[in-house]
Amino acid sequence: MDLYQQSLQLHKTYQGKYRIESKIPIRDFQDLSVAYSPGVAAPCRAIANNKEDVYTYTSKGSTIAVISDGSAVLGLGNIGPEAALPVMEGKAILFKEFADINAIPLCLATQDTEEIIRICKALAPSIGGINLEDISSPRCFEIEERLKAELDIPVFHDDQHGTAIVVAAAIINANRLSGRRMEDLRVVINGLGAAGVAIAQILHDLGIQHIIALNSKGVVHVSNPPNTTVAKLFAAGVLVDDPDKHTLSDAMANSNVFIGVSVGNVVTPAMVQSMQEHPYIFAMANPDPEIMPDLAKSAGALVVGTGRSDFPNQINNVLAFPGIFHGALHARAKQITNEMKLAAAHAIANIVSDSELKSSYIIPGAFDERVVPAVSQAVQQHVMP
Amino acid sequence: MDLYQQSLQLHKTYQGKYRIESKIPIRDFQDLSVAYSPGVAAPCRAIANNKEDVYTYTSKGSTIAVISDGSAVLGLGNIGPEAALPVMEGKAILFKEFADINAIPLCLATQDTEEIIRICKALAPSIGGINLEDISSPRCFEIEERLKAELDIPVFHDDQHGTAIVVAAAIINANRLSGRRMEDLRVVINGLGAAGVAIAQILHDLGIQHIIALNSKGVVHVSNPPNTTVAKLFAAGVLVDDPDKHTLSDAMANSNVFIGVSVGNVVTPAMVQSMQEHPYIFAMANPDPEIMPDLAKSAGALVVGTGRSDFPNQINNVLAFPGIFHGALHARAKQITNEMKLAAAHAIANIVSDSELKSSYIIPGAFDERVVPAVSQAVQQHVMP
Repeated sequence: MDLYQQSLQLHKTYQGKYRIESKIPIRDFQDLSVAYSPGVAAPCRAIANNKEDVYTYTSKGSTIAVISDGSAVLGLGNIGPEAALPVMEGKAILFKEFADINAIPLCLATQDTEEIIRICKALAPSIGGINLEDISSPRCFEIEERLKAELDIPVFHDDQHGTAIVVAAAIINANRLSGRRMEDLRVVINGLGAAGVAIAQILHDLGIQHIIALNSKGVVHVSNPPNTTVAKLFAAGVLVDDPDKHTLSDAMANSNVFIGVSVGNVVTPAMVQSMQEHPYIFAMANPDPEIMPDLAKSAGALVVGTGRSDFPNQINNVLAFPGIFHGALHARAKQITNEMKLAAAHAIANIVSDSELKSSYIIPGAFDERVVPAVSQAVQQHVMP
Repeated sequence: MDLYQQSLQLHKTYQGKYRIESKIPIRDFQDLSVAYSPGVAAPCRAIANNKEDVYTYTSKGSTIAVISDGSAVLGLGNIGPEAALPVMEGKAILFKEFADINAIPLCLATQDTEEIIRICKALAPSIGGINLEDISSPRCFEIEERLKAELDIPVFHDDQHGTAIVVAAAIINANRLSGRRMEDLRVVINGLGAAGVAIAQILHDLGIQHIIALNSKGVVHVSNPPNTTVAKLFAAGVLVDDPDKHTLSDAMANSNVFIGVSVGNVVTPAMVQSMQEHPYIFAMANPDPEIMPDLAKSAGALVVGTGRSDFPNQINNVLAFPGIFHGALHARAKQITNEMKLAAAHAIANIVSDSELKSSYIIPGAFDERVVPAVSQAVQQHVMP
């Protein structure tokens, strides 16, 4: 049985990957009258008097929703809410298994930006945070931005920031290995969807000043941005324009960091050889990377990271999102700020000690038990009071 | 410590009454790749090809949402979504403890009828049913009716039908005791909110032809119905008009069933004495019944039921909603029909054997373990194929 058959079998056997449990046994009228009517009127009244008490008397503070509209699911595309549910249930159990967070998987039967925003806002009283997932670009940018502005609970689109934080950690540690400084880096990002945009932003926040990006039509220029989010990246100096560069080959020549978040097999060894010496290659397309790690290494790459667990340096979101939400919930953060994301990236990077650090080990593995507590603590230290 | 202090303490200790658990351990990359990426693409693709497979590969079929807008919570009124959350969490754990149903408590930050409808419809892909709870009348009628018409999963406002089903069971058994037939009954319902309207409907469906109802202004007349739902009850012959009756005293004189779902202490012994011999009194106002059971008995009542567990014949919704949803989910019913509600009422009534039946035991207790399986089975037998 291959992996896909195993997965079908598993999902059929369990009929869903999560379950809800009561923390409190209801054995008799005494239990019922304390946990439910009439005793429950007491916490209700307390919260009615002071809304913040909802964190004291309910599950809100330990519970998030994993919300998707099914519009950009894994590599499968716009498969709709029902078909997206196995992914959201999977994400929910990762939150539980990695960070003991209650996560409710909710797939919405709408792909209307305003309606998704309204629904998330309406759901907010019962939950302590929202992990947006697999919402297509560029709608995901507006949905996240608006919710961050209009809600007082943390909102985080993992497809954007989860990946970005782990890439940032990898680059921090690649610099430890190479001795380069952030201002020495010339970065090419291939793909300006959810992940690409967030990667550009966090790398800029890290101090990288030269980032060129491409979408499916080639190098993106300030004169013709594909959407307002990308236009804002140029306006903020996050993206740099080079009018002479048009193709991926053009862009990669003389750069020293390649970040692929688009499609596989688009980078040749010659393109790696056209980069500065000892470049960093993050080839995160799935299942086939932009270039296979052995080819990139042979062509001179110092470090190679991919999205796959069967190669070194897996860029796996699970290094970020469990600790991020754990920290945000524990500190009752109202937002997940750029500072918190940077702190998370540094925390992930710092897990790897100087003696452990090498080109095949620049980021910790997904199951490294040191990661979640370190990320959570770093995030909590950067929550605004 | 009184009950309310105990409840505050309990809620503070547990910080929420439910938790979410993973059914599947995630210990290593093999687990991760089967339960999550990349293996999860297989059930996603299967569901994308055949939407009904969402019941095979996800939790949808064993999960409902308990949804409220916090507009009519217990006796506390319109206390809003945060303050309503302890009640919805309580309801969720009752679903779990009584019927092993996963129930997600969701309190919405909107009281707009159309928006609540839109949100419930958008949430439907992830859940197998919706238990509406504590939504004020008359908005609750439109919300439930529209959702029943527009969704293909069961929707049930428990404040309406949970109470109504248990009252129906009690009347079925009161007739076993008295020898009366349904067509002999002359019913007065005091209170035409969520519960009162649903009680009128199910009693009509049981064959009762003479039902007079009152709201806070007195007897409701066909010439001046308080809302369109009540107007429809007159049009359908569910409610009867008697233009000569105005007060509760007028209404009760010569009737033989009193059903109180409004405020306490409004029925006097003289009013009970003005009824036909051996009437049934269901005085369900909380915490104080419309008349105390001992007074009603002294005034001639054959049976007295209340909402309280410290008196005989408690009319407790928990006799209905767990088995109703258990049956509806197991049979994958698209709706909870009037036939299913009647079947549930008969199943509850039939739990009490002829030898057990007496005026102080006309309905089973809330913790009678025979109830949920019997209700579930009865409901399943009445699901349309």
